[in-house]
Amino acid sequence: MHVTLPDGKQLDLPHNATALDAARAIGPRLAQDALAATANGELVDLMSPLPDGAAITLVTKKNPADAAPVFRHSLGHVMSQAVGEFYKAKGYGPEAVKRGVGPSIENGWYQDFDLPEPLREEDLPEIERLMRGVIGRNLDFSRREVSKEEALAQFPHDPYKAELIRDLPDDEPITFYQQGDYVDLCRGPHFPNTGRLPTAFKLMSTSGAYWRGNEKNPILQRIYGVAFATQKELDEYLHRLEEAKRRDHRKLGKELELFTIDPLVGKGLPLWLPNGTVLREELMRFLREQQFQRGYQGVVTPNIGNLDLYKTSGHYQNYSDSNFSPITVDDEEYMLKPMNCPHHVRIYASKPRSYRDLPVRLAEFGTVYRYEQSGELNGLTRVRGFTQDDAHLFCRPDQLKKEFLDVLDLTVLVLRTFGMNDVRFRVGTRDPESGKYVGDEANWEAAERQIIEAVEEVGLPYVIEPGDAAFYGPKLDFVVRDVLGREWQLGTIQVDYNLPERFDISYTGEDGQDHRPVMIHRAPFGSLERFVGILIEHYGGDFPLWLAPRQIVIIPIADRHNAYAETLADEFKAVGLRAEVDDSTNRMNAKVRTAELSKIPVMLIVGDKEEELREVSVRERTPEGHKERKGVAFVDLMKELQERYRARA
Amino acid sequence: MHVTLPDGKQLDLPHNATALDAARAIGPRLAQDALAATANGELVDLMSPLPDGAAITLVTKKNPADAAPVFRHSLGHVMSQAVGEFYKAKGYGPEAVKRGVGPSIENGWYQDFDLPEPLREEDLPEIERLMRGVIGRNLDFSRREVSKEEALAQFPHDPYKAELIRDLPDDEPITFYQQGDYVDLCRGPHFPNTGRLPTAFKLMSTSGAYWRGNEKNPILQRIYGVAFATQKELDEYLHRLEEAKRRDHRKLGKELELFTIDPLVGKGLPLWLPNGTVLREELMRFLREQQFQRGYQGVVTPNIGNLDLYKTSGHYQNYSDSNFSPITVDDEEYMLKPMNCPHHVRIYASKPRSYRDLPVRLAEFGTVYRYEQSGELNGLTRVRGFTQDDAHLFCRPDQLKKEFLDVLDLTVLVLRTFGMNDVRFRVGTRDPESGKYVGDEANWEAAERQIIEAVEEVGLPYVIEPGDAAFYGPKLDFVVRDVLGREWQLGTIQVDYNLPERFDISYTGEDGQDHRPVMIHRAPFGSLERFVGILIEHYGGDFPLWLAPRQIVIIPIADRHNAYAETLADEFKAVGLRAEVDDSTNRMNAKVRTAELSKIPVMLIVGDKEEELREVSVRERTPEGHKERKGVAFVDLMKELQERYRARA
Repeated sequence: MHVTLPDGKQLDLPHNATALDAARAIGPRLAQDALAATANGELVDLMSPLPDGAAITLVTKKNPADAAPVFRHSLGHVMSQAVGEFYKAKGYGPEAVKRGVGPSIENGWYQDFDLPEPLREEDLPEIERLMRGVIGRNLDFSRREVSKEEALAQFPHDPYKAELIRDLPDDEPITFYQQGDYVDLCRGPHFPNTGRLPTAFKLMSTSGAYWRGNEKNPILQRIYGVAFATQKELDEYLHRLEEAKRRDHRKLGKELELFTIDPLVGKGLPLWLPNGTVLREELMRFLREQQFQRGYQGVVTPNIGNLDLYKTSGHYQNYSDSNFSPITVDDEEYMLKPMNCPHHVRIYASKPRSYRDLPVRLAEFGTVYRYEQSGELNGLTRVRGFTQDDAHLFCRPDQLKKEFLDVLDLTVLVLRTFGMNDVRFRVGTRDPESGKYVGDEANWEAAERQIIEAVEEVGLPYVIEPGDAAFYGPKLDFVVRDVLGREWQLGTIQVDYNLPERFDISYTGEDGQDHRPVMIHRAPFGSLERFVGILIEHYGGDFPLWLAPRQIVIIPIADRHNAYAETLADEFKAVGLRAEVDDSTNRMNAKVRTAELSKIPVMLIVGDKEEELREVSVRERTPEGHKERKGVAFVDLMKELQERYRARA
Repeated sequence: MHVTLPDGKQLDLPHNATALDAARAIGPRLAQDALAATANGELVDLMSPLPDGAAITLVTKKNPADAAPVFRHSLGHVMSQAVGEFYKAKGYGPEAVKRGVGPSIENGWYQDFDLPEPLREEDLPEIERLMRGVIGRNLDFSRREVSKEEALAQFPHDPYKAELIRDLPDDEPITFYQQGDYVDLCRGPHFPNTGRLPTAFKLMSTSGAYWRGNEKNPILQRIYGVAFATQKELDEYLHRLEEAKRRDHRKLGKELELFTIDPLVGKGLPLWLPNGTVLREELMRFLREQQFQRGYQGVVTPNIGNLDLYKTSGHYQNYSDSNFSPITVDDEEYMLKPMNCPHHVRIYASKPRSYRDLPVRLAEFGTVYRYEQSGELNGLTRVRGFTQDDAHLFCRPDQLKKEFLDVLDLTVLVLRTFGMNDVRFRVGTRDPESGKYVGDEANWEAAERQIIEAVEEVGLPYVIEPGDAAFYGPKLDFVVRDVLGREWQLGTIQVDYNLPERFDISYTGEDGQDHRPVMIHRAPFGSLERFVGILIEHYGGDFPLWLAPRQIVIIPIADRHNAYAETLADEFKAVGLRAEVDDSTNRMNAKVRTAELSKIPVMLIVGDKEEELREVSVRERTPEGHKERKGVAFVDLMKELQERYRARA
């Protein structure tokens, strides 16, 4: 048999040769470094026979992305062995520990167990210690093919293994992997030796899981682990996890009183509490100002519409899974609106338009309702009712690029205003093979070209994804990476040839004839709900001054300073700054701590000296920690804060 | 028999004496001046026998309110006679004109006819001329009682009269009234003589009306007339009517492109066009600023809610006529929200509250949906979906007066900002006879007292209407009279003891015990839809600068001034002023006319001289007509307009 190497060279090998044989044939150094291999793009281990004619690569620690799923899986077996030893030490025989499935997953693995007594979270460090012991013993992983009978005989006391084996197809080889005295039914791949496995792992948690995911079956105990090639990566991962937990918008949303979800009102229907409403309104004010400068016009449309409207638009037929059930009114049927576009198209159509009137840019913070399964609902980021920062631009085909550029510019400005600087674009174009697109070929080509030209002009990274266009037009997604390295898809710009056609809208051209406008849908935030959810996590609740629901707290050192504090608060409020006085009976330090917990960015402490000189002591929260200034004149601070508020800093 | 006069004197009169007999008994002058009378509070004429023992007053032209319905009814008979003469002149016999009912109504009367050929609008002046002829003949109105047989014999050719007569109860007298040769079946009352009738009348229109309002019956032709005691009153009435037509918000809403209603979207569901949306947003911004200064907190809640929420609040059971049909979601039922209160109560209940936290003032521009019959829908003032400028104040009983005063103050400020200075209050209190009120007796008494004290402090006129309270609390309505003398009920403040009870909400008092807060519902605008509808009519579309959707139009004298005009528009826009350039190819005068028709308050005309000196010529629309200023420095005008915009002038 032969295999092909990445450089194109062919390697002749004996029948049933493994990747290790291939590595040895290349050189002893590689044979020593090899951890696994790929054959025709699939991960294989060094112990498995290679298919004849395969294109192979050898995986060493220089290919961490390929090595990781293999060592995670092998660590799963090591853990399984360690769990056996743990119960053996408690006096149980080997048959007492039964095992379900145990795949590798993102960042780690899990393994299901049926245990003689439940494993407690506090037992996990001991399992980890036993795992390190197995690793230290430098056990080889060996692989062997067995018959069904042999396989069943191996696990006489384990009904789960037996069930798995019985369900295996007859024409596929059954393989066992073994390290030391631990044998498991497994497809592999594995590392060659436990001594080569990284020790940067951690057992994270245990949970219950139905055998084979069926709630009629017994519940097994599932143990999760994570592992990385280096301790540094593991530490970073654990830190990100900790941060993500700390920043969870559902947790912060409750602590900072931003929103609540009340089952009596309804699932997936957030109630925006006063603090959250401030955030929402600041976002709307910001975008409204931008839109005013860019020639958008506001409109307001109802939250329901006649079913005929959605039949005309096609939403009724095409998105039936996410539509709420119809509402009967007299002899008509209505529906909660799932999108604002049909309403805006009807506003466009409410009067004759000339080529001179275009583009018409209609914007609305439009609240829409879409059904989601209750299991999918999640805080603010997956809801059943949400407000889109929606706009529809009706333009002539020759205006498409300029409008697209302005939308790109606006969206990038929006994201940068929130310090989201790691932005890239995904441009969805037609699949050249498919013919299922609405609209004119020449328009499509022009539109795709204009979008790519516009993206080029902006100068941010982008990828083109052929086939990712909607059937009604090409589109562009914004992908933002947050401080935790997580990617969020924010905002879409969508060109649409379909709705203008379905609603038969037009404008009178310079030639006096009717022409079809092209539509752009866009929403820089996506929705206020989702965007605020992301912002909460992005800032970890530490909002910049302009967004902070509670901007300033004034802390009187003693009761006798309350009146002075109140006059300052009133002056702030008179210019629109959100200031409050902590006139509770708590001591000053407790007041400072309360303000810290509420993440109020500016604390002003006032006592005798401050009152006498009309000054304040300023304590500010900054990303770098605290900044303290004493003896600041109130007038100066007022000017400074007003300026920062105006500048959205 | 005897009757009692207003001064308490008794008058002895012969059996079956009439009011004219009574007048004669008092004195010949009164007998001459008398036009009608009241007996036990009911209008009667001078020809009808008075009931024995009645308390009577005599009506002369000094009692126009009492005289008007009588002369309007008599003029109806005069018109009916004139219509007979009109068709007689065309050669028809008297049996050709058949008559349905003909009551007096507000400001006038109508009479239904079955005519041999339809009366055209252009025939109405001729009928009026014939009416003046009848009046000039000084015909006495006479009254006689008849039997049913006599009555039927009088109208052998008129099936409508015959049907009316047959349907009369047997135990009531049937009366005929006659002037000259015209006889009609009628209950009266009437003036004594056609010569005493005012000539300040006008026939307004004709329309079709089903006989007895039943659409299975034939359509009769209805003629409407109006009449007043003096020509001045008639002229004023006709002027108000003309003004009301000119100011009709549905007409102006279309002309000024403020809103549209699109059957494909839905009946009673206005689409706010860009110009209307500006109005709406200015109103919201204004109120939001006020509310911020007054310590309100904004919240946002969904447009639907679980049916259980409205069952708990009682809205589901108590307002079923105006609820939309439920929406099924999985195994739950939801409903379009008819009111925001239940949602706000749940926000109040979302965390523990202490006596120190109260009052909690939750405000939302909340869009609600209530079913109205399609025949009742009217432009913006009667709709199925509308946005309330809603707020709910949760306070301690001892805070009620202060909160009530602040709401009164805010509402009066709101109305005055729009030049609505003719305001009065209606305070609805309990009916002392009825026991159907929720909540504690002492609280009710205190609340009613505090409301009245608050109203007294404001110093505007008010009336107390016992029995007008809702079952859940006393209330206060604002009644505003507009420039046309029409009264509008705007805004309500409602005290509520019921919802706090139904949702079992509480606060911890100073005593450490749970206490029930009291709620105030309030909405100074009522709803944005209704308020904007009224504002359009109030201003006749001529909005003050701050509200005007299009504030400034810059008119270049020639094409070469377009660029200068654009730089000015950009400078206005940069500070948030709504400016546009009319760069059409029209001539200057046509541009001015277009701007006038669009009711844009500020027109700036720019030519060579203006451009050179950075000046503008200003033409402003004011209630008094036009104001023109030449050679105004642009910087000065900018400052002036910014100041006016800020001051909401």
